[in-house]
Amino acid sequence: MFEKILIANRGEIALRIIRACKEMGIRSVAVYSEADAESLHVEMADEAVCIGPASSAQSYLKVSNIISAAEVTDVDAIHPGYGFLAENAHFAEICESCNITFIGPSPDLIRNMGDKAIARDTMKAAGVPITPGSEGILRDKDEALELARSMGYPVLIKAVAGGGGKGMRVAHNDVSLAQGFMMAQNEAESAFGNPDCFMEKYIESARHVEVQIIGDKHGNVVHLGERDCSIQRRHQKLVEESPCPTLTDEQREELGAIAVRAAKAVNYNSAGTIEFLYDEKEQKFYFMEMNTRIQVEHTVSEEVTDIDLMKEQIRVAAGEKLAFTQDEVSVHHHAIEFRVNAEDPYKNFTPSPGNVEAVHFPGGPGIRVDSHVYSGYTISPYYDSMIAKIIARGATREEALNRLHRALEEFEISGPNTSVPLGEALLQDERFRKGEYNTAFLEKFMHDKFCR
Amino acid sequence: MFEKILIANRGEIALRIIRACKEMGIRSVAVYSEADAESLHVEMADEAVCIGPASSAQSYLKVSNIISAAEVTDVDAIHPGYGFLAENAHFAEICESCNITFIGPSPDLIRNMGDKAIARDTMKAAGVPITPGSEGILRDKDEALELARSMGYPVLIKAVAGGGGKGMRVAHNDVSLAQGFMMAQNEAESAFGNPDCFMEKYIESARHVEVQIIGDKHGNVVHLGERDCSIQRRHQKLVEESPCPTLTDEQREELGAIAVRAAKAVNYNSAGTIEFLYDEKEQKFYFMEMNTRIQVEHTVSEEVTDIDLMKEQIRVAAGEKLAFTQDEVSVHHHAIEFRVNAEDPYKNFTPSPGNVEAVHFPGGPGIRVDSHVYSGYTISPYYDSMIAKIIARGATREEALNRLHRALEEFEISGPNTSVPLGEALLQDERFRKGEYNTAFLEKFMHDKFCR
Repeated sequence: MFEKILIANRGEIALRIIRACKEMGIRSVAVYSEADAESLHVEMADEAVCIGPASSAQSYLKVSNIISAAEVTDVDAIHPGYGFLAENAHFAEICESCNITFIGPSPDLIRNMGDKAIARDTMKAAGVPITPGSEGILRDKDEALELARSMGYPVLIKAVAGGGGKGMRVAHNDVSLAQGFMMAQNEAESAFGNPDCFMEKYIESARHVEVQIIGDKHGNVVHLGERDCSIQRRHQKLVEESPCPTLTDEQREELGAIAVRAAKAVNYNSAGTIEFLYDEKEQKFYFMEMNTRIQVEHTVSEEVTDIDLMKEQIRVAAGEKLAFTQDEVSVHHHAIEFRVNAEDPYKNFTPSPGNVEAVHFPGGPGIRVDSHVYSGYTISPYYDSMIAKIIARGATREEALNRLHRALEEFEISGPNTSVPLGEALLQDERFRKGEYNTAFLEKFMHDKFCR
Repeated sequence: MFEKILIANRGEIALRIIRACKEMGIRSVAVYSEADAESLHVEMADEAVCIGPASSAQSYLKVSNIISAAEVTDVDAIHPGYGFLAENAHFAEICESCNITFIGPSPDLIRNMGDKAIARDTMKAAGVPITPGSEGILRDKDEALELARSMGYPVLIKAVAGGGGKGMRVAHNDVSLAQGFMMAQNEAESAFGNPDCFMEKYIESARHVEVQIIGDKHGNVVHLGERDCSIQRRHQKLVEESPCPTLTDEQREELGAIAVRAAKAVNYNSAGTIEFLYDEKEQKFYFMEMNTRIQVEHTVSEEVTDIDLMKEQIRVAAGEKLAFTQDEVSVHHHAIEFRVNAEDPYKNFTPSPGNVEAVHFPGGPGIRVDSHVYSGYTISPYYDSMIAKIIARGATREEALNRLHRALEEFEISGPNTSVPLGEALLQDERFRKGEYNTAFLEKFMHDKFCR
């Protein structure tokens, strides 16, 4: 097992990794930007190295600085968390060449799954259902128009390098396609340095259902059930729950089997997620993308299966065999996570950074809190606005929802605006309570609630 | 189901009950002394009534004031929590006569189990193993001496009305017995207004193992496994874990069956605990006492069984049938609780009340925090010194212990001294890690650690 791990990240995920290290008796090294000197991850780690100024490009994304920190502190491995360098194949390669284990899959795998067009083709070859769409990237606008007419509108233009909703456009007709194609290309070029886009049939009123998988270096892959992450604002998840409230046991089993097949097809050997669109009308799943990292919402799967995914990800990276077989994984509970963001949900989700004068987190049965925030902490405008994940577990979905609701009521913060009032409103909505929602739900909910 | 419940308690257990009420859609009424006006239970409840000055005798123990508050706020039921009036049969009777449901067993049951001599005789009659000892109360010192000589030393003198370690003396010979008997009587007289004592054979190096039971008003009783509460300071529990680390599955099953038999013998119909001494050398269990209330450490059983005991206790009080059978109860995990007390473990556990300038609770996977304390809260010298319960859950005992350890490291408080450093030391002790401890362990551990 590793003796020392460097955590190339910040915020709650850095804490999550440090906690796993502590529980495993592994020493941890935090890295931090000048803006994060007072952060909890710096205090909690065994060692800490400053890697640059506040700007991510000059600190958390600066490969040379992170590698230097790793060399100086003599670590065996680097955990990238999510975001930043977590899906940067080049970074994973450099780690390898420095004889430091990158806790994640191989560089090639990251690269292939990071190219949405290659991922799509790979999955298709492995017999995983994909939406109708282009074969690889679109040459130009004319090819896009021709294909869209033959498939029928609406269609979705996606950047091959995309992520976080960037470089993505829905088109309902020729005009919006011509325009959307150019915009997606421009956005992709500026965000990812790669303008390439492809096309998929756009599935309306679909649910975002994803499967957590984990594999080891001995060819074993298991899944830990699915998560429904359809409650999104601007293509970013706000609520995640497991199990998905509307799937039957048969569908659940089928989806898990598809995900394991997909992961095995690429020799996947770390923690990862396979995202699907679920067309409720047609009762069909379509491969969306594969994320080759631990995700924000891995917590939800941990709560329902009682498996510590972070520790298991570290173990398999060290070459250990998976500690459990598929038969030994079972979903005991229902769990739901709400992302507390420092933002104003009533003002178009405007970020709300600044000083947290006081914060008081919820507690009691079934409540887990993952947060790097404390009373007196200053939320930096440089980074992601998520300040806490509140996860509620219950014997039934109803119990989990009731617990989350009372936990959000207990949450107190003075200083920034947060997404909490939106969560409270959502948990009182009858359709949400019944599980009747899809990726379009939150926008409509917000509109009905606040824009009359 | 009840529409409104009054909580005749304070601190973390008041929060625990309010949380259950919120999750069940029941309105809650807090009562508070003048010293508790700024307490979280007052803020979290739907309504709150001041019931007197700081002194417990004039507020939380003042039956007339509590009943008035219940009448004014028109509640259906009163939850007494633990301590204060929780095992006061007279209070339960008055609730009944006012047509308010007392959430707990019937007054007669409370009275009989509260009299340790009657409880002993009742359990003996039900075939529950008890230690050799006196038949009922001891007339006088001479009877005590005669019986002790015939049983053989050491013996234990216990007040029939005892609790919390008061009115209890161990005697190893005639001299210490004569003296101890008088002291136990005097202490019992002043603490409980009843000097009556009885005698038991003293089991040395025993473990304190207790079984959580719950019954309904339809004759069903189930147990939720056992808790080992042997880590005690001055006969007060400091650490509780489930399952007990040294029992075999057969012993576990046998103990559960004995507890259910005991509960059924008295028609038990609420949440309760049957405490046993476990003689490890002889591998025998002996009935110690029955607690007719929800206990501080019920949380540990909730974590291992995923059953919400508080909600279930409220449901059965309202006349509902138990939601599960014995077969449906299973112990999935290991859980361990550490009581954070505001006291100085290095100075003979001297209480350390006062202002909490700042507090930061641990979080992350497997950690549950039940606490009424917040940054700026003032710990009153009038009440119990417990300020938080930190409960760690894990797939194995080792994982639960590692999580508790890192959680105690994360816990930060500025202001009072706490028991946390003792917990951290304990979690690094090899014997404790192996589960090799009994009720004498902590005293010896403290001595070895701090008194050389």
